[in-house]
Amino acid sequence: MQLLEDRITQDGKVYPGNVLKVDSFLNHQIDCDLMTQLGAEIVRRFDGENITKVLTVEASGIAFAFAVASLLGVPMVFAKKSQTNNLSPNVYNAKVVSYTHSTTYDVRVEKEFILPTDKVLIVDDFLANGAALTGLADIITQAGAKVVGCAIAIEKGFQDGGKIVRGQGIRVESLAIIEKMTNSSITFRN
Amino acid sequence: MQLLEDRITQDGKVYPGNVLKVDSFLNHQIDCDLMTQLGAEIVRRFDGENITKVLTVEASGIAFAFAVASLLGVPMVFAKKSQTNNLSPNVYNAKVVSYTHSTTYDVRVEKEFILPTDKVLIVDDFLANGAALTGLADIITQAGAKVVGCAIAIEKGFQDGGKIVRGQGIRVESLAIIEKMTNSSITFRN
Repeated sequence: MQLLEDRITQDGKVYPGNVLKVDSFLNHQIDCDLMTQLGAEIVRRFDGENITKVLTVEASGIAFAFAVASLLGVPMVFAKKSQTNNLSPNVYNAKVVSYTHSTTYDVRVEKEFILPTDKVLIVDDFLANGAALTGLADIITQAGAKVVGCAIAIEKGFQDGGKIVRGQGIRVESLAIIEKMTNSSITFRN
Repeated sequence: MQLLEDRITQDGKVYPGNVLKVDSFLNHQIDCDLMTQLGAEIVRRFDGENITKVLTVEASGIAFAFAVASLLGVPMVFAKKSQTNNLSPNVYNAKVVSYTHSTTYDVRVEKEFILPTDKVLIVDDFLANGAALTGLADIITQAGAKVVGCAIAIEKGFQDGGKIVRGQGIRVESLAIIEKMTNSSITFRN
């Protein structure tokens, strides 16, 4: 999506270790108008899928997920991250390995908020190694609901996540896919 | 605000320790349409204040803050919680005592996202002891910006936060103020 690629080119900063900082508009300060336009493009791409719920994980996915869910007119659920092992019988739980922080955490959703009849769109700001998405898809499957697909703002195309999630048969729509980045240039996949 | 009070009465659950669970519409599963209506009421109450930015703290304040900021047409910034002591010179930092979890954490905002010219509205889903709001107001003050006020969905009127924050001369607008709650009834302040 040209609008997002232009914004990344203009305001994104690349740091060592393949870190892309887009916190002036996407995940610390939020450009609400941009987010709504990204949401509208996601709604267009998933037209006809009869989505009943949007699922994301706290915290940086929430604004984008809210924009998408608002436009779809469906509830948005955000999974909570937890490092405790206290499991409740009322909660779906999946383990996620964070390569960024070299830790493992759980993502959790109260069972009452995902029903077997739900058609769920997963939304997140970033797709890198795919661990968070895989965890969320696992929760939807545990609930007996349908994974409609994943809607992503920025995919790091040079990491494995996109390949892994698509390899599980899940439709992934990323609004900008970065093929390669250096501290002086960012190249997008066509 | 009648709409929110009715929803709390209908779907809120009271648990021992003065816990009010509203996670079916406010802070786990989000009713996006309700959130937008709450946002519109906040915009109405702060009309004429020329707000330039909305500030909240991750994670459960983000959806409400996004709704408010979208309607105002201004950026939304969410402060990040951190338990590390690594401070960066590029970051505003304030300490927050969490009575709920008996811990202390830091809230942090990159300095570039709050400017001395900003008029900032603080938005959060809950006001109980006021510690998070006080931390956010502290950050705005460190930036030399103006605290326009606090916009809250649910205030626990039987806890001290409202009194403390208002006592600092900060305008607080809460859409529902709970005077008293038991497991069979919730009473709102007029």
